[in-house]
Amino acid sequence: MKKLINDPQAVVAETVDGFAAAHADLVVSSGDPETLFVSRAGGAVAGKVGLVSGGGSGHEPLHAGFVGRGMLDAAVPGAVFTSPTPDPIMAATKAADGGAGVLHIVKNYTGDVLNFETAAELAELEDITVKTVVVNDDVAVQDSLFTAGRRGVAGTVLVEKIAGAAAERGDDLDSVAAIATRVNENVRSMGVALTACTVPHAGKPSFDLDDDEIEIGIGIHGEPGRERIPSASADEITEQLLTAVAGDLQVASGDRVVLLVNGMGGTPASELYIVYRKARALLEERGAEVTRSLVGNYVTSLEMQGASITVLRLDEELLALYDAPVHTPALTWGA
Amino acid sequence: MKKLINDPQAVVAETVDGFAAAHADLVVSSGDPETLFVSRAGGAVAGKVGLVSGGGSGHEPLHAGFVGRGMLDAAVPGAVFTSPTPDPIMAATKAADGGAGVLHIVKNYTGDVLNFETAAELAELEDITVKTVVVNDDVAVQDSLFTAGRRGVAGTVLVEKIAGAAAERGDDLDSVAAIATRVNENVRSMGVALTACTVPHAGKPSFDLDDDEIEIGIGIHGEPGRERIPSASADEITEQLLTAVAGDLQVASGDRVVLLVNGMGGTPASELYIVYRKARALLEERGAEVTRSLVGNYVTSLEMQGASITVLRLDEELLALYDAPVHTPALTWGA
Repeated sequence: MKKLINDPQAVVAETVDGFAAAHADLVVSSGDPETLFVSRAGGAVAGKVGLVSGGGSGHEPLHAGFVGRGMLDAAVPGAVFTSPTPDPIMAATKAADGGAGVLHIVKNYTGDVLNFETAAELAELEDITVKTVVVNDDVAVQDSLFTAGRRGVAGTVLVEKIAGAAAERGDDLDSVAAIATRVNENVRSMGVALTACTVPHAGKPSFDLDDDEIEIGIGIHGEPGRERIPSASADEITEQLLTAVAGDLQVASGDRVVLLVNGMGGTPASELYIVYRKARALLEERGAEVTRSLVGNYVTSLEMQGASITVLRLDEELLALYDAPVHTPALTWGA
Repeated sequence: MKKLINDPQAVVAETVDGFAAAHADLVVSSGDPETLFVSRAGGAVAGKVGLVSGGGSGHEPLHAGFVGRGMLDAAVPGAVFTSPTPDPIMAATKAADGGAGVLHIVKNYTGDVLNFETAAELAELEDITVKTVVVNDDVAVQDSLFTAGRRGVAGTVLVEKIAGAAAERGDDLDSVAAIATRVNENVRSMGVALTACTVPHAGKPSFDLDDDEIEIGIGIHGEPGRERIPSASADEITEQLLTAVAGDLQVASGDRVVLLVNGMGGTPASELYIVYRKARALLEERGAEVTRSLVGNYVTSLEMQGASITVLRLDEELLALYDAPVHTPALTWGA
């Protein structure tokens, strides 16, 4: 294992240290190893619904990279590929509460769901109203390791972006939760792995793939997907992914969509654009309009090579909220 | 070789296709395989100095990712790790000319320098005034494969950003060239590779590294650096790189600097922040102030794992130009 790390047990703490120092204009770290979280530099916004997300580390920039104006108020990083415990989630919830309640955005993994639930109960004891939206956009498999039901993957970024904009414009907690739910209902994803990744404290690859083999429908922790197939062309792989995603979402002629091609961490940008090119063409063949696009590393799996395709069906309101200004370390647009 | 590509010979054309479609609000591709370049969606800005850069592909987002308001007017992608020929450079120069002349920003590799020189001569025949700044920020080695003198690496992004801001505020060609030169004189970089990368049309890794070996001072095409050493901790590696960079730049107490920690393409973001954390601490030990920071993939080498550290010494004017608005696919801030 060759990695740019020091003590494998210190990876998350040192990453958050560096991250908070590099983006001190936008975020601040709690600094406390027992209740580690990242929140907006200015603190909670009075009267605004707070948005908190989190989960295992190793998926950077998710979630801390999306803390800032127009998106999350706080993010809680667990150990690599391991859910954060209720205490830091509770601390982050408190820090994010501006008096209008807090929305928890949780990827659908058993540990995350349980720990966010416990934290929500603790928060209610302190008179903070919490609602929760569980994201489950991965169409690859019905159940999975660590998951009852579909997994939450790159669609989470779009839930956080759009719900963040709803909170920023002053929506109340019920409305922000409804918007987040609407995004989740209209977003689907599926990924492919060309290589495995190595969790630092494990010291060896999470799974084995032959030199000429790829895994279609991979999970972001390396969970098994639909099938292993011989390595194929980008166009063939993209067609498999896009067909599954667009089929499940029932993309129809005239639909306007966001197309997100997400890198798994070790994939050259050029390859993501080659996948994007084909995915866009296939959506256009179906009569859909690719109204907005994101291409890059948003929800990664350490140094895994591979990509995922996410399609979100837009309506007028979701598009306006998508376009609203956002100022975070990993996503920035608008004034 | 497992890559998300189709025909290895079509990688650049398909990448540019996808890139231009994904960022159609910002850029447009010439579409012509013989004279392939990317330029601003709105065309040349009348009365503004045009900025053109380019070089071999495989370093994305460099250069096309930096085309847009406040930065480049056009970028010319060659084949992977291969200089573009004079014809597309000439075509891009013409497209970027708003009547105030064009600055060529060229990384110091023999092929790039020669081909940009020829293109500049062709442009002069059509009455376009061209000036050239050659970037050579890599302190690792004096000469290298493909290079007489130091190589141009990640410091190029800062030259393009700051010279782009000078052009945007209305500086004339001599002034923009002087600013670009001043950035180059005040910026230094050095990198490390943990793994090699594979050029698509070559089909095998560019060099061999043992499982416990890293290359200090790597070039962005995999050119040899200073030495191969056994794999070490992130802090030890960072100290080697930062000491070389800050020593060569003679960073002194009271200096204000930009610290850029650049990923080589296959490196998890977490590792870049761990390197950033240590590099920042070492600069502060020297009494320097890290005034601005960039952490991410800016000048990559396909899927290579590794990172480089770049330090730019700021003065008041360079800082103001760095902070000026920029709107490109890969770098965005300000109104």
